[in-house]
Amino acid sequence: MDIYKKALELHEKNKGKIEVISKINVKNKNDLTLAYSPGVAEPCREIVKNKENIYKYTSKGNLVAVVSDGSAVLGLGDIGPYAGLPVMEGKAILFKEFAGVNAVPLCLNTNDVDEIVKTVKLIAPNFGGINLEDISAPRCVEIERRLKEELDIPVFHDDQHGTAIVVTAALINAYRYLKKDITKATIVVNGIGAAGSAIIKMIKQLNPKNIIACDINGILNKNIHYENPLHNEIASITNNNLIKGSLATALKNADVFIGVSAPNIVTKDMIKSMNTDPVIFAMANPTPEIMPELAKKAGAKIIGTGRSDYPNQINNVLAFPGIFRGALDARAKTITEEMKIAAAYAIANVIPDEELADNYIIPDAFNKKVVENVANAIKKCVQ
Amino acid sequence: MDIYKKALELHEKNKGKIEVISKINVKNKNDLTLAYSPGVAEPCREIVKNKENIYKYTSKGNLVAVVSDGSAVLGLGDIGPYAGLPVMEGKAILFKEFAGVNAVPLCLNTNDVDEIVKTVKLIAPNFGGINLEDISAPRCVEIERRLKEELDIPVFHDDQHGTAIVVTAALINAYRYLKKDITKATIVVNGIGAAGSAIIKMIKQLNPKNIIACDINGILNKNIHYENPLHNEIASITNNNLIKGSLATALKNADVFIGVSAPNIVTKDMIKSMNTDPVIFAMANPTPEIMPELAKKAGAKIIGTGRSDYPNQINNVLAFPGIFRGALDARAKTITEEMKIAAAYAIANVIPDEELADNYIIPDAFNKKVVENVANAIKKCVQ
Repeated sequence: MDIYKKALELHEKNKGKIEVISKINVKNKNDLTLAYSPGVAEPCREIVKNKENIYKYTSKGNLVAVVSDGSAVLGLGDIGPYAGLPVMEGKAILFKEFAGVNAVPLCLNTNDVDEIVKTVKLIAPNFGGINLEDISAPRCVEIERRLKEELDIPVFHDDQHGTAIVVTAALINAYRYLKKDITKATIVVNGIGAAGSAIIKMIKQLNPKNIIACDINGILNKNIHYENPLHNEIASITNNNLIKGSLATALKNADVFIGVSAPNIVTKDMIKSMNTDPVIFAMANPTPEIMPELAKKAGAKIIGTGRSDYPNQINNVLAFPGIFRGALDARAKTITEEMKIAAAYAIANVIPDEELADNYIIPDAFNKKVVENVANAIKKCVQ
Repeated sequence: MDIYKKALELHEKNKGKIEVISKINVKNKNDLTLAYSPGVAEPCREIVKNKENIYKYTSKGNLVAVVSDGSAVLGLGDIGPYAGLPVMEGKAILFKEFAGVNAVPLCLNTNDVDEIVKTVKLIAPNFGGINLEDISAPRCVEIERRLKEELDIPVFHDDQHGTAIVVTAALINAYRYLKKDITKATIVVNGIGAAGSAIIKMIKQLNPKNIIACDINGILNKNIHYENPLHNEIASITNNNLIKGSLATALKNADVFIGVSAPNIVTKDMIKSMNTDPVIFAMANPTPEIMPELAKKAGAKIIGTGRSDYPNQINNVLAFPGIFRGALDARAKTITEEMKIAAAYAIANVIPDEELADNYIIPDAFNKKVVENVANAIKKCVQ
């Protein structure tokens, strides 16, 4: 039986994936008196006295809202808030299983930026953090920016920063393993949506020699004006030599390819045109920009994908559980750039030098050290 | 140690009362493949094909949002969405423990009717029902009315209808026990907020001879114009003889007193001025309109309160768990008047004739037959 049929059966049998349970017994009148009326009035009064007491007496401090409008779901695109729910429930259970974080899906019946921002602000009181999920670019960037400005709890758009953090960790380890200097590297990023733009902003902090951003219409160039504000922003911080052309042009003599774009758009010849021992992260899902076997034959040294059936899986689950675990535990009010870089190094450093290999630059998703390392790194940034 | 201190300790020790867990194992890559990417795409695609499939493959069908703005919390008043959270978490665990319904608190950071309606509409896609809670009158009436009109899932304001249903059940059983005819009864309701107005609308359906509604300024009269639209509405359906005066006037020769108002406002003399064997439901919390001992001495035959330490506790937990259990199971699109009356009779009928007594007209909150009876009654209304 194929995995899609199995997945369907699993979802039907369980009627979804999340359940809300009580941490407290309610078996008799005495229990009711303490958990509900009249006893519950006392924690209420303590929060009236001091709003911060909400963290002491309620579930807020360990509860995250997984907020989506279903406009950019996995490989499925704009399927809306109803059809997106299975993914959001999936995200919620990953939060719980990987980091003990309680998470609730909130699938919003609107694509309007103002309405999404407003709704999240209004529902924020009982959540300790907001994980934005599968919201299409460029709206996702504005939504996150405004919510970060206006809320006093961590807001994190996983499709941007989760991916960026894990790619950065993979890049750090690839260069550590190859004993090469990243400040001499030319890095090509293809696909300038939520993930691609966040990856570029983040790997900029590793000071590579040059980053070339490509989208469907070719290399971005700051001398061109784009309708998508994200493209103007990215053009302004990439492409030092202001070259023009296609992805093939960009890859000539490049050292790293990072794809968050479309299946099979990178050819063997393009890989061959790159510098020696190129690093290829081909993360289009489920079919990568180039299949690992083909990339290898063309001379790629290190290959990562988004898939679990190949080595070096670049998987967001390495980042978001530990990031929220750390941020919630430290009562962080926001997720900073410093925290994201710290998280990338924390993931990378799970693998000691001597264990690094062509096919092992990224730890396994189920390696327990990952969440611990990431959470600790985040907490250190708060202290 | 007093219950308030105990309750505080219980809330602190557990850091709140709710937890979100996974119904599915996520212990290895295979689990991840089915619960998340890429397997999760299949239930998503099935929901794209047919929106109703969301009930088949997700938790929506058994998930209720407990929505409040914290403006009318228990005996605490307008304490806001933060301080109200312990109560909403309490409500959520009662849903789970009494009826197996998953419930999530959503404490909204606004008192504005339009904003509340809009927010609930936008978050509705992944919920199977909306339980409005502790929202002050008269806003709660408008919010519920608009949401019922605009949503295709059950919306229920418990402070109105939960209370009304249980009071109606108590009244049905009091008259069954006393073998008296309710169509000959004069019923005084004191406190015309969310609960009082809903009680009046509901007991109207039992066709009592007269209902007299009192608020802080005395008996409501349709010849007077009130600022509160709810008061005009209630005045128009009560007080057949258009009498004027105070609560004391209203109670003279009345048969039933229903109080959802303030402590100790009913005196012994007022009870004495009522007809023989009066029925007194004094539900102000935690101190009733008249203490049961005093009411008894003054000649009250049947006395109910909101308290668990006296007989005949009129407790909403007798209604809302079974109502949502039945409505969710039957995929009801709304909660109708017929359902509410059916729920009241379902609660009343848990007690057989021969077991009815002065101090046993309402079943115990932990009587398992209650949820079952109510859920079945609701389901019958849908079929």
